[in-house]
Amino acid sequence: MSVYLHDIPLNQAQAKFQEALQSADLWRVLSVEEIPLDENALGRVTAEPIWAQISSPHYHASAMDGFAVRAEDTVGAQPSSPIQLPITNYELPKAQYVDTGDPLPDWANAVIPIENVESLDENGQITSVIRQPSAVRIRASVTPWSHVRPLGEDIVATQLVLPAGHILRPVDLGAIAASGHQTIKVSRKPKVAILPTGSELVPIGSALKPGDILEYNSLVLASQIKQMGGEATRYPIIKDDFDLICEKVLEASQTHDLILLNAGSSAGAEDFSAKVVEKLGTLLVHGVAVRPGHPVILGTLDRRPQTAVSGQPSVIPIIGVPGYPVSASLTVDIFVEPILAKWLGRKQNELQTEEAILTRKIVSPAGDDDFVRVAVGKVGDKLLAAPLSRGAGVITSLVQADGLALIPSGTQGIDAGEKIQVKLYRTKSEIEKTILAIGSHDLTLDLMAQFLAEKNRRLASANVGSQGGLVALRRGEAHFAGSHLLDPQTGEFNISYIRQYMPNIKVKVVALVGREQGLIVKKGNPKGIKSLGNLSTRSQERDALSSSKRSVQFVNRQKGSGTRTLLDYYLNQLKIPHEYIAGYHQDEYTHLGVATAVASGRADCGLGIAAAAQALDLDFIPLFQERYDLVIPKQFVEFLTPLFDLLTDSRFQEAVSQLKGYDVSIMGTIILEDE
Amino acid sequence: MSVYLHDIPLNQAQAKFQEALQSADLWRVLSVEEIPLDENALGRVTAEPIWAQISSPHYHASAMDGFAVRAEDTVGAQPSSPIQLPITNYELPKAQYVDTGDPLPDWANAVIPIENVESLDENGQITSVIRQPSAVRIRASVTPWSHVRPLGEDIVATQLVLPAGHILRPVDLGAIAASGHQTIKVSRKPKVAILPTGSELVPIGSALKPGDILEYNSLVLASQIKQMGGEATRYPIIKDDFDLICEKVLEASQTHDLILLNAGSSAGAEDFSAKVVEKLGTLLVHGVAVRPGHPVILGTLDRRPQTAVSGQPSVIPIIGVPGYPVSASLTVDIFVEPILAKWLGRKQNELQTEEAILTRKIVSPAGDDDFVRVAVGKVGDKLLAAPLSRGAGVITSLVQADGLALIPSGTQGIDAGEKIQVKLYRTKSEIEKTILAIGSHDLTLDLMAQFLAEKNRRLASANVGSQGGLVALRRGEAHFAGSHLLDPQTGEFNISYIRQYMPNIKVKVVALVGREQGLIVKKGNPKGIKSLGNLSTRSQERDALSSSKRSVQFVNRQKGSGTRTLLDYYLNQLKIPHEYIAGYHQDEYTHLGVATAVASGRADCGLGIAAAAQALDLDFIPLFQERYDLVIPKQFVEFLTPLFDLLTDSRFQEAVSQLKGYDVSIMGTIILEDE
Repeated sequence: MSVYLHDIPLNQAQAKFQEALQSADLWRVLSVEEIPLDENALGRVTAEPIWAQISSPHYHASAMDGFAVRAEDTVGAQPSSPIQLPITNYELPKAQYVDTGDPLPDWANAVIPIENVESLDENGQITSVIRQPSAVRIRASVTPWSHVRPLGEDIVATQLVLPAGHILRPVDLGAIAASGHQTIKVSRKPKVAILPTGSELVPIGSALKPGDILEYNSLVLASQIKQMGGEATRYPIIKDDFDLICEKVLEASQTHDLILLNAGSSAGAEDFSAKVVEKLGTLLVHGVAVRPGHPVILGTLDRRPQTAVSGQPSVIPIIGVPGYPVSASLTVDIFVEPILAKWLGRKQNELQTEEAILTRKIVSPAGDDDFVRVAVGKVGDKLLAAPLSRGAGVITSLVQADGLALIPSGTQGIDAGEKIQVKLYRTKSEIEKTILAIGSHDLTLDLMAQFLAEKNRRLASANVGSQGGLVALRRGEAHFAGSHLLDPQTGEFNISYIRQYMPNIKVKVVALVGREQGLIVKKGNPKGIKSLGNLSTRSQERDALSSSKRSVQFVNRQKGSGTRTLLDYYLNQLKIPHEYIAGYHQDEYTHLGVATAVASGRADCGLGIAAAAQALDLDFIPLFQERYDLVIPKQFVEFLTPLFDLLTDSRFQEAVSQLKGYDVSIMGTIILEDE
Repeated sequence: MSVYLHDIPLNQAQAKFQEALQSADLWRVLSVEEIPLDENALGRVTAEPIWAQISSPHYHASAMDGFAVRAEDTVGAQPSSPIQLPITNYELPKAQYVDTGDPLPDWANAVIPIENVESLDENGQITSVIRQPSAVRIRASVTPWSHVRPLGEDIVATQLVLPAGHILRPVDLGAIAASGHQTIKVSRKPKVAILPTGSELVPIGSALKPGDILEYNSLVLASQIKQMGGEATRYPIIKDDFDLICEKVLEASQTHDLILLNAGSSAGAEDFSAKVVEKLGTLLVHGVAVRPGHPVILGTLDRRPQTAVSGQPSVIPIIGVPGYPVSASLTVDIFVEPILAKWLGRKQNELQTEEAILTRKIVSPAGDDDFVRVAVGKVGDKLLAAPLSRGAGVITSLVQADGLALIPSGTQGIDAGEKIQVKLYRTKSEIEKTILAIGSHDLTLDLMAQFLAEKNRRLASANVGSQGGLVALRRGEAHFAGSHLLDPQTGEFNISYIRQYMPNIKVKVVALVGREQGLIVKKGNPKGIKSLGNLSTRSQERDALSSSKRSVQFVNRQKGSGTRTLLDYYLNQLKIPHEYIAGYHQDEYTHLGVATAVASGRADCGLGIAAAAQALDLDFIPLFQERYDLVIPKQFVEFLTPLFDLLTDSRFQEAVSQLKGYDVSIMGTIILEDE
């Protein structure tokens, strides 16, 4: 099967591609165009250095409303011995009124602001005439060139205004205008064709049946190209048909500088991309040792004779972009951005790199350059990077990512607590405003994220269960943890666990909500489940249920989660051993995960909250009430002021109470506050 | 005159304006529009939280090409005891071929990758049939859900995908599509009218006569508005006519959300803006204690009854934007950005703030919030901020600025060496690639900047003269200095000065160019100047020149500059005292400054280089040849590798030799290198 797919190292792949472009004379600015100097020039890239054609100001300009004078004529003026400068009575005047911006008369070399002169009439009396008094009286001398903007103060004709390769900002356009230009030479926008292929693809917004895949990669890729300064064409979906794909690729090659053939780049039965490139040109690389994204194809197409224009490059580069959305997007960042930068004549986009502490071990294949999406937040003095989902299909991991960490090939992984370099998608000030939540998942956290965003705070939450959250707080890895751990001894929530897992850390514990826990079951409860007892294989046998209602498949929450603790507490009371529960060891990390498992048929029921059942239109069998608290180390109480404000915000309380199974009456109650 | 203009503190002005907008119900998202989910949504702001309508994947999907199986059926499979899973012979199959992305059959709960199975024909022999063998043989068990992307792995229906107020990025569009949307609700783009007023204004590209001012503020402002997410309309230039301005303001108010009236905001005779606002609405603020930009006007216009639509706000905000380009641009940053952020429902743009060391004392009026443009570079471990021109008319100071430092009101200034907070326009990685040059100015530095830009390095140069450059190097404020200081004792360039000004610092000194110094005179040399001797008042008297050729006005370079040292050296040899030279104490900081002074008539001649005369089409009388060296502290030699590369780059040498009066034969010669 894998005739073509041989991963080569990332840097070799890039070098090979660049070499091919160089030998085709395609490793340079594609071409130059002259455009008008208007708002559309914003973001374009200068194709040549811009030299000033004129000076600015192009004359000596008064910098004030006042009188132009010769500095020499003012020498000796003092409060007690003023000097009078006549205006109308001399062939060569000694003072002349000028507005700000007016040119200085030839004979003048300074300006006295109007508030520093006394205007006199023909009788030597003070007058309110502004522009044409007979004379002005001054009581201080001025130095040459004071209150004058000399010719060339801003720009001197012939000087360099901007270098080539500069991305134009608003003020640049002003400086270019000021230096005498009314058009500007910029690099042409590279034209990139994006061809989505795959018989399983359906357009955005389609009603879906199993096996359908929404085609949104072309939207993401086109937007990336646009952001990089290129011009993208999204082609309609092309089904898996070798000849059809060849035809469309040829069509696109007539009018584009680069072709992105999306999906079909693996080595599966219907992965035609490599064969298409081989047929129409040269396959340079099939498979790169990079994660995510390894089945990348790099190649060139031969430009067909019928379109050969003198001076036109002989080949067109083509990239086979993997189908998984994260792979696709990163492939464009890694392989397309350097080419567009070169074609536009600008430097490559560069993200700010910061050193952060890894919160969780990353395992990585030693042979690959592995790009890991991370959430980044500052907790106390430490910048922390928490790895997000590694799945190449999980586009939300890119949405939530604050940065990208590269685990270079040759490294098998990095331990928790070690330092890594992270390329940041956000500014450090944004990251300093990020609230890191960890612990038990609750749907109200999504609402909280929305309300905090309005207060210019970002909530990044990681779901590791209640105990995991307390451990993370002890390690200084988050600002607060959501927890709902029932102590079987005391029947009390959270406190004993906090003391156990976070000894010597002063905390404030605030109730967020009371909530119902119960069994999430399929709509209509086809297995007739009524209590925890129905889960036990023993009890199923004993009750001799009809076969359709037997073998209830359970889905559990992960160890350390409050829900699991609750389950164990009640199983223990009911004397039901774990091994009697089919699926006890199958873990999900969130309430919605449990609900999803039930909705999809992977399980018949799971313990969770009513809201999760409601969200996925499932049935819910209430069993217990529990308290969900926010656990906050005292040192972060001040930082979390916007969050405390929320707890007394009636809009937020209202929004939470819309969710089924929540009691907001206890919201904000202080459960514990250490001195 | 200043009837209206009373500066009030910046924060009070902002609060007053915000209050007025609040009471007019204009302190909120203006309105919401639903747009298609395509590339044009990039950069728009979500007007509502986006909740997932569907899960992604919306079914259990195979993550590999392979065979769907029940994990239970594989238990016990080992290399030595394989298990055979029949495909065609059972009512309920035990294995079924699936491509990546295919839905899992209802009965299956895992996938075995194709490379891990042996396909068998009906005789139990291995076959190359892929999709429909009779059976597959496996030699290892699999766990449930392995190689499966379960329903909701990426997105679970009902979860929060993005909060409201989020600026859409490429991956966001993908996630929105994946969660089942095909349109998206975003805030409407605020419409901003920009009205340039002033009888002295002429359009970009006009042929200029003295007093004409190029109207490019509207271009800069419109581009800023565009970048902030608004939609700008640039009106044609309106001359200074009160009624006409009123008419145009009213016209613009029919179709816009905000009006920017550019210039006319001072209190001069032709500054109508405040009167216009008073006539048509309410003048809230005239004058803000902020530099640059204090004559800002803030007000509201009453919406005329004929346009009153139910629910439409009753007033339209108007801002009188000062005329100087730096003031205008900063006024938009300070006053417009917060309003657009509110109207768009996004958070305000925020620049990264870093602490830097000020290289030169800043004096600032105590009553004003003073925004100082600074060049920022990293020299060794120190982040340095060098103040740029303070002139409100110097737009190049914004072009060159790497950041903005605020000297808050209540502070009279900040000393050199003190720490200041700088809001950075560039990323820190860009700033770490900035080469800071200081010292004597030479035109080749502009060329060097252009060539270094191609190597992804930015050259920021400050012109403080040769001695000033050496002093700056001693203080660790730059990476290299250009110097051409002649030692009168030894007749040698630079070395003795380096030892004097930079004791104990190890340096590398490299020749850049040999260059001619001479007298820059007007075209045609109307005063018939031939030598330094002609400058002396004494010699002018002695030679009894005709009166038209007498009183030669000289323009000098500043103290410490190599050119001034050269002048003093030769004046001394000629025994001409300084006081005989008219204009000896009038300083310019660059060769182009001297040439400009001559071109504009401010002086008859000055000592400088041929290239500066050539640049401004002046005549040049060569007098001496000198050597211009680059002085580099050893510790920066490695950092400056791209610069050393330039010195041997024939393209660069060629470009320099195009300039008149340069000898490139010595370029790169090592003059001195300490061990």
